[in-house]
Amino acid sequence: MEKKSELHTTSKHLARSGQGRSRVVIENVKPEIDCGRFAAKRTVGEPMTVEADIFADGHDALSARLLYRKEGISGWTEILMQPLPNDRWRGSFEVTEIGDYYYTVQAWVDRFQSWRQALAKKVDAGQDVALDLTSGAMLVEAAAEQAADKDQESLKRFAATLKGNRSAAVRIGLDEELAAMMEKYSDRRWAVTYEKNLQLTVERAKARFSTWYEVFPRSCASTPGQHGTFRDCQKRLPYIAAMGFDVLYLPPIHPIGESYRKGKNNALDANADDVGSPWAIGNKEGGHKAIHRQLGTLADFQDLIAAARKFDIEIALDIAFQCTPDHPYVAEHPEWFRKRPDGSIQYAENPPKKYQDIYPLDFESERWEELWNELKSVILFWGEQGVRIFRVDNPHTKAFPFWEWVIGEVKQHHPDALFLAEAFTRPKVMYRLAKLGFSQSYTYFAWRNTKPELTQYFTELTQTDLSDFFRANLWPNTPDILTEYLQFGGRPAFMTRLVLAAMLGASYGIYGAAFELCENVAREPGSEEYLNSEKYEIKHWDLESPGSLKDFIARVNRIRRDNRALQSDRNLSFYPVDNPEIICFGKRTEDLNNIIVVAVNLDPHHTQSGWVELPTEDLGLAPQQTFQVHELLTDARYLWHGKRNYVQLDPNSAPAQIFHVRPRIRREQDFDYFM
Amino acid sequence: MEKKSELHTTSKHLARSGQGRSRVVIENVKPEIDCGRFAAKRTVGEPMTVEADIFADGHDALSARLLYRKEGISGWTEILMQPLPNDRWRGSFEVTEIGDYYYTVQAWVDRFQSWRQALAKKVDAGQDVALDLTSGAMLVEAAAEQAADKDQESLKRFAATLKGNRSAAVRIGLDEELAAMMEKYSDRRWAVTYEKNLQLTVERAKARFSTWYEVFPRSCASTPGQHGTFRDCQKRLPYIAAMGFDVLYLPPIHPIGESYRKGKNNALDANADDVGSPWAIGNKEGGHKAIHRQLGTLADFQDLIAAARKFDIEIALDIAFQCTPDHPYVAEHPEWFRKRPDGSIQYAENPPKKYQDIYPLDFESERWEELWNELKSVILFWGEQGVRIFRVDNPHTKAFPFWEWVIGEVKQHHPDALFLAEAFTRPKVMYRLAKLGFSQSYTYFAWRNTKPELTQYFTELTQTDLSDFFRANLWPNTPDILTEYLQFGGRPAFMTRLVLAAMLGASYGIYGAAFELCENVAREPGSEEYLNSEKYEIKHWDLESPGSLKDFIARVNRIRRDNRALQSDRNLSFYPVDNPEIICFGKRTEDLNNIIVVAVNLDPHHTQSGWVELPTEDLGLAPQQTFQVHELLTDARYLWHGKRNYVQLDPNSAPAQIFHVRPRIRREQDFDYFM
Repeated sequence: MEKKSELHTTSKHLARSGQGRSRVVIENVKPEIDCGRFAAKRTVGEPMTVEADIFADGHDALSARLLYRKEGISGWTEILMQPLPNDRWRGSFEVTEIGDYYYTVQAWVDRFQSWRQALAKKVDAGQDVALDLTSGAMLVEAAAEQAADKDQESLKRFAATLKGNRSAAVRIGLDEELAAMMEKYSDRRWAVTYEKNLQLTVERAKARFSTWYEVFPRSCASTPGQHGTFRDCQKRLPYIAAMGFDVLYLPPIHPIGESYRKGKNNALDANADDVGSPWAIGNKEGGHKAIHRQLGTLADFQDLIAAARKFDIEIALDIAFQCTPDHPYVAEHPEWFRKRPDGSIQYAENPPKKYQDIYPLDFESERWEELWNELKSVILFWGEQGVRIFRVDNPHTKAFPFWEWVIGEVKQHHPDALFLAEAFTRPKVMYRLAKLGFSQSYTYFAWRNTKPELTQYFTELTQTDLSDFFRANLWPNTPDILTEYLQFGGRPAFMTRLVLAAMLGASYGIYGAAFELCENVAREPGSEEYLNSEKYEIKHWDLESPGSLKDFIARVNRIRRDNRALQSDRNLSFYPVDNPEIICFGKRTEDLNNIIVVAVNLDPHHTQSGWVELPTEDLGLAPQQTFQVHELLTDARYLWHGKRNYVQLDPNSAPAQIFHVRPRIRREQDFDYFM
Repeated sequence: MEKKSELHTTSKHLARSGQGRSRVVIENVKPEIDCGRFAAKRTVGEPMTVEADIFADGHDALSARLLYRKEGISGWTEILMQPLPNDRWRGSFEVTEIGDYYYTVQAWVDRFQSWRQALAKKVDAGQDVALDLTSGAMLVEAAAEQAADKDQESLKRFAATLKGNRSAAVRIGLDEELAAMMEKYSDRRWAVTYEKNLQLTVERAKARFSTWYEVFPRSCASTPGQHGTFRDCQKRLPYIAAMGFDVLYLPPIHPIGESYRKGKNNALDANADDVGSPWAIGNKEGGHKAIHRQLGTLADFQDLIAAARKFDIEIALDIAFQCTPDHPYVAEHPEWFRKRPDGSIQYAENPPKKYQDIYPLDFESERWEELWNELKSVILFWGEQGVRIFRVDNPHTKAFPFWEWVIGEVKQHHPDALFLAEAFTRPKVMYRLAKLGFSQSYTYFAWRNTKPELTQYFTELTQTDLSDFFRANLWPNTPDILTEYLQFGGRPAFMTRLVLAAMLGASYGIYGAAFELCENVAREPGSEEYLNSEKYEIKHWDLESPGSLKDFIARVNRIRRDNRALQSDRNLSFYPVDNPEIICFGKRTEDLNNIIVVAVNLDPHHTQSGWVELPTEDLGLAPQQTFQVHELLTDARYLWHGKRNYVQLDPNSAPAQIFHVRPRIRREQDFDYFM
């Protein structure tokens, strides 16, 4: 505990610092999450850029290296770090495999570099450098001692030249080849290595870029009123694939409880034919490892997974760790639940509200270790069926240590497993869950509708340290959330919110078919619950309805697939527009080979127009350059000029425009006979 | 190194978390400097406020404590932390002694509080609470088991009442006395303690609030041209005390080297009668522990310290760890210097510039430990003479580990020792030195002249994490720095800069008598060096010159002593003014008993006026309230009204106004016969 007290005690400190001579400071390393307690996150193929403040006393030249290695590999890979202004240094590497990496920083006073810089200045000033050249020769000779074979020979030759005639010696002293070789054999005796090995968790690309569609399999029957099955759901795959989704998320597929079952519209008393909520898990037929009988068999489910795979769609399963009174756990493991003084099990409550159909698991149970292991076995069971994406229901009502542990455990078996946290709660709780290991997180996107709200929130998510561990997944609607913007904005509101979700977020999802069919009737004014919510009844959706947004969605998702800039969030910037109802933002690849600019009319009722202001220099455009923008939703092309350009957005026809910026346009010089 | 890899391994993690049931998270503790690597700083009598993000899963009530103790004391003192918005908690204690403290945070899910909140809601909703009351009784009985004597009896009585008739039971369940007692015996089995004991270094009040005057003793002789002595300097004390200074800082008082001695105006070749720079330390008569013969004896120096003490003035000594070629160290310890290939010792250089009169010490020397110990003995030597304040010259050109070590070592002997870092270098280097233990630091204040510059810089210094370890000491001039603002702004510029330094900074200093006499002639255009700089020659100052600012300075320093708000920097705020040439800011005590508002005309050439906008609510004023401001420089009083008030500042008479805000003014209600 008291390691701090060492700071002020003589002998210990002197002993500790065998490096009294180690003069370099490395601090403020980024990314470093909670002092290294948590891992930063990247996906395979992403660059990992690390920065640090590095400096020493005085004015000596420094060298710095970013060190990294994959877990289980011994020995660091070293990357040269480059100095930025204000004592900041930066290095970068690309991660190529799923798993855990470590990284740290090493730096030292580089005596040869210091010598070389001084030599250059003295030579420029016409000073006598005879002694300097001798000093340099000594440094090179010392390096030669460390080298072998050819390198040793070369260094010896360099040293000899430094001791020879002045002009040759000066030329060699400033020679790049010698500098490179001296860097290789740089004297690191007093190098400082940052005191922590920081962790980086690398997940597959889908953790970063994914397009989700939520569907209730029981509503997939072709005949209205009939209970849909996995087989029906399978038939829905071409429809879903045509819209361009690559994750199909199913609400819980387990047996639904009967005690205190909720009726239509969340009625306290269900009728005999009410199907109940899929989140009320468990009855006498089984719990979290069983399948609701009316959906089909485990084999049917496996068929669905296999069939989806052919459409490049992955099945995401809902992990909702809660039980109905009928769940087998209740009888088999009453010790996993909290008891009331009368011996009955405590149902969920948020006083004065009671949820008697739900028994929460007690993470303070004496038998918490058995509970943890059982819950882990649930996830592993579905992992064995081939599920690799888990959408976790209300993780913020289960103990944090459990999530860190179970996600780590599951990844031991399935390193490619992904977890989406459905925590609509306070920001710090949401961020903590992300740190604990969730690959993606739901966000407040649904309630960010105005330009200042969207700008502030997405700047926070993508341009701060959050971006190193919190990956947003944007949902304009869910079975629980029909926002007032959607309720009152008509079809244009659905188009606007779709484009915002799909363009602001490299990962987004919709709850269909409610979304593409623009279902917007709430249970009552002021409520965000759907009227006749699919949570409590079987729905039959008219997928071929003429108002469906399915083609529009397909177009938007095609644009996402075709444009690499849209597959990341770290590259988001907002651009000024002189109209508060129009929001404009851009994403671009680091090499500027793919630049997308999006303008969205946030007003679903009126046509809005305005001048957007592009940061031309950041986009690789000259200030007065003429360039082409290709509007990808309509396939229209415009010539834009310089920073300020005009947009006009009619909510009924095109509430949003997605521009692919093409800096190069053909001109007279392009004709071969121009010269 | 690889402790991070434990995160994802089953058994270790399960073992580690005997706290699988510990559900609380404590993160983002402030202050916490570089992950706890460095101590936060406070002075005796200051409040120490600690904040942390504290939350758990779910909606249970939490309890949190700030724990602290002084080094050497076993057992924590506990302070209740209070919840703020957004999962932030805060606790505060006052430090009363010089030395090191530790602090940390503990929190837990408070089952009784959770129960009590639920009970209140259920009672409000008219629900049956019979089982709840039984649960509550069980919690109280469990607490009684932990208590003894009277407490145990009381708790048993409470428990009995909770099991009795409903209305009495509910009343007791919500009773404050029971709540307080249950807090005392709160069930902390699964409490979480923050993983670090953070360190707090407490220094004496002068580290926070000090008023410095720099003088060259050799210029204190009453006869022009004569070499002044400590005795002459002693005669200057009444003059310095009358101006209100409490630290008298002397440039180095050691023997001055003769080799390569600099002449007047830094001439490369000195005349025989040139006195040299006090920073060129060491000759055959001695080095850093000796006194320059012409200044007097060690006894004279001790007399000066004693005489100063009578005026409440402390002597600050200059620690300039560098040697002339004549310094005894050069012959006795050549191994502490770097050698050139010809065996000569390397003089200081910043190519192409050479400083042949200075040999830097080599902190990469093989004998670095002996060097460190010798340098420490220098500081301790002067400590033995009674010096407790050390102004360290160019600490950024000596190894960082040395400073951390030597400051700790000196404080072992003299816990009241203070160190001022004179590092005019890059910001991160300056901040690092402060973290390593320097009590105060020079700043960029001299070059911050415009309103945006001052606002940005002092907001950074006082309103960010910097304020926990970096204490600014503001100098409008030094023997090295005669800014262009002072060169061209005449006497008003000196007044303006004095008020800014004295009001923005709880610690500030001037180099006199150059400052109070408005000496403003630079050696050449574009230079910040004084013409005929006192660094290289003896000066004779006409202290009774009619233009002297001594009375003005005395008034300003009196205001600082009389107003507690001005004795701290953490309480600084800037207020808007509709004139870019006027800056307005305020400082106030936390209890609002002392509120100071300062308005300064930054334009030394023209009268400027404008409307300042006060944050009336923060100052405890009603929005439309009339209140009195007492202008402390002129003793004028004004009635101000509401947020916006007018100021006019004539640089020739009063370039600044310092208002003491008195919220209460007498009105008709104050007459006893009003009623």
